[in-house]
Amino acid sequence: MTKMAVIGFGLIGGSMALSWKQARLVDEVIACGHREESLKLAKEMGAADSWTTSIPEAVKDADIVVVAVPVQAMEKVFSDLADYLKPDAVVTDVGSTRMTVIEAARKGLKEKFCQYAPGHPIAGGELPGVAYATKDLFNDKWVISTPTDEMDPEKVKFIEDAWTKAGAKIKVMSPELHDAIFASVSHLPHVLAYALVDMISKEKYAKEKLGMAGAGFRDFTRIAASSPAMWRDICLSNRTAISKELKRYRQGLEELQEAIENSDAQKLEACFENAMKNRRGLVFSASKQDLGKDDGRSKSH
Amino acid sequence: MTKMAVIGFGLIGGSMALSWKQARLVDEVIACGHREESLKLAKEMGAADSWTTSIPEAVKDADIVVVAVPVQAMEKVFSDLADYLKPDAVVTDVGSTRMTVIEAARKGLKEKFCQYAPGHPIAGGELPGVAYATKDLFNDKWVISTPTDEMDPEKVKFIEDAWTKAGAKIKVMSPELHDAIFASVSHLPHVLAYALVDMISKEKYAKEKLGMAGAGFRDFTRIAASSPAMWRDICLSNRTAISKELKRYRQGLEELQEAIENSDAQKLEACFENAMKNRRGLVFSASKQDLGKDDGRSKSH
Repeated sequence: MTKMAVIGFGLIGGSMALSWKQARLVDEVIACGHREESLKLAKEMGAADSWTTSIPEAVKDADIVVVAVPVQAMEKVFSDLADYLKPDAVVTDVGSTRMTVIEAARKGLKEKFCQYAPGHPIAGGELPGVAYATKDLFNDKWVISTPTDEMDPEKVKFIEDAWTKAGAKIKVMSPELHDAIFASVSHLPHVLAYALVDMISKEKYAKEKLGMAGAGFRDFTRIAASSPAMWRDICLSNRTAISKELKRYRQGLEELQEAIENSDAQKLEACFENAMKNRRGLVFSASKQDLGKDDGRSKSH
Repeated sequence: MTKMAVIGFGLIGGSMALSWKQARLVDEVIACGHREESLKLAKEMGAADSWTTSIPEAVKDADIVVVAVPVQAMEKVFSDLADYLKPDAVVTDVGSTRMTVIEAARKGLKEKFCQYAPGHPIAGGELPGVAYATKDLFNDKWVISTPTDEMDPEKVKFIEDAWTKAGAKIKVMSPELHDAIFASVSHLPHVLAYALVDMISKEKYAKEKLGMAGAGFRDFTRIAASSPAMWRDICLSNRTAISKELKRYRQGLEELQEAIENSDAQKLEACFENAMKNRRGLVFSASKQDLGKDDGRSKSH
């Protein structure tokens, strides 16, 4: 009889509960959060067997504790749960940044840090909340494991094996490389998409502009519908790497602006050509969850 | 017996031929271009009934002439075809910019400019070429009509009515407003997506970064797989409006960079929140063509 406590029961926490139950990794799930409405919905959906707003209550009988709150809130949650952990329980998380989250676990869990193993599933959706959770969210998706020397290899292996059994694929790397990679391919694009929609919404003819947007704009800005609190936290948590990438990007845009103003066709085409070749060379694992995701459909939920 | 000549037989030209034939607006299509292979494929696909690499040959018997080449090449095409136009023929185009294209028509067609009516269908796909053309590409999509005082209202109406019969929806506006709108919601996003993929591809760990990219990156950069020549031309053609938007955008990014470096949570959240609300409020017409378009699938073509 394995019991899992999930603290922060949103899209990721809820999908993890559904997926780990489906894979028979856990028999019972207790959902913990501060919004009773979400927790009730979680139970109605069958994602959780019970719920509580109390961290001690959630953690005291749990064999697996998952922290799935926004990353800047994690240190407090680790700290609040440390005293109630069973001696053989394993604690993991699903945060989008690694260096500061591991540091938060170290500070929050203190001597219980040996019970912690990290994990970052590369999956999600722009619409937050347990209502959008599905058991298939992690199928064939990467989960990044970033163990460090001070962690217990058995706990790390336990979490890696569990994700694999739940249908995901494990990639092991250092927390530093993780944060550099996702600053480039996830965090920066979110900042850029938010910035574009924010800018246009404040312009003259904003209504006409947004009303005429086509499929290119729809896909480019899909991630700008994501949770502001979650992405604010990611920007603060991975500040150094994001800031570095954003600076590089701004330099690139400055050069493109010059090329446009000088009608430098060659320079523009060289950039576009290189991007096109690299982009067309990419293959993405296409799950049912990803295909056709667009706000036109999402609105019917 | 209505004959249509399409000069530049790619994704848009080919889809227009298929769609206008399907709607019985035209009985016969002649494809014109400089790549024989594409033209042969167009005939094989049934998109064209015949083909030629000669503009005079294509135009001499045509009742409708469609110019569907990259926008910077349009003036020469208008100029090359002007002398061969039948007196009652109508000339239109499908370019993504309006002010410079209308000017190109005026300069290229000279006294035949009265036979011209403009049109910009808001539809496409990141993979260019007639191989991707479909008769449904314009279904329920906007076509922007930007008539000016010097144009013949009858020709303008003819083109607007034809697009409507072919399944599209007409929106009338000034060329200036068109160019401002699409600089914001189409041209700038393309520049931003190209810039991001180009930058990452030149970084340390480029392979690791691109290899770990998930669904957010996939959708954000889908348009970076678009034709470099087409988008180089659009940047040059709509230079003033794109340059203005890009400058505004760069200022916005500078402010966000400051907010990230200063851990200004409030400023970040305000931007993300406003963008999220605006983005979630948008509804896009979802055609089969748009849904689930991703490179994983496209590679099987």
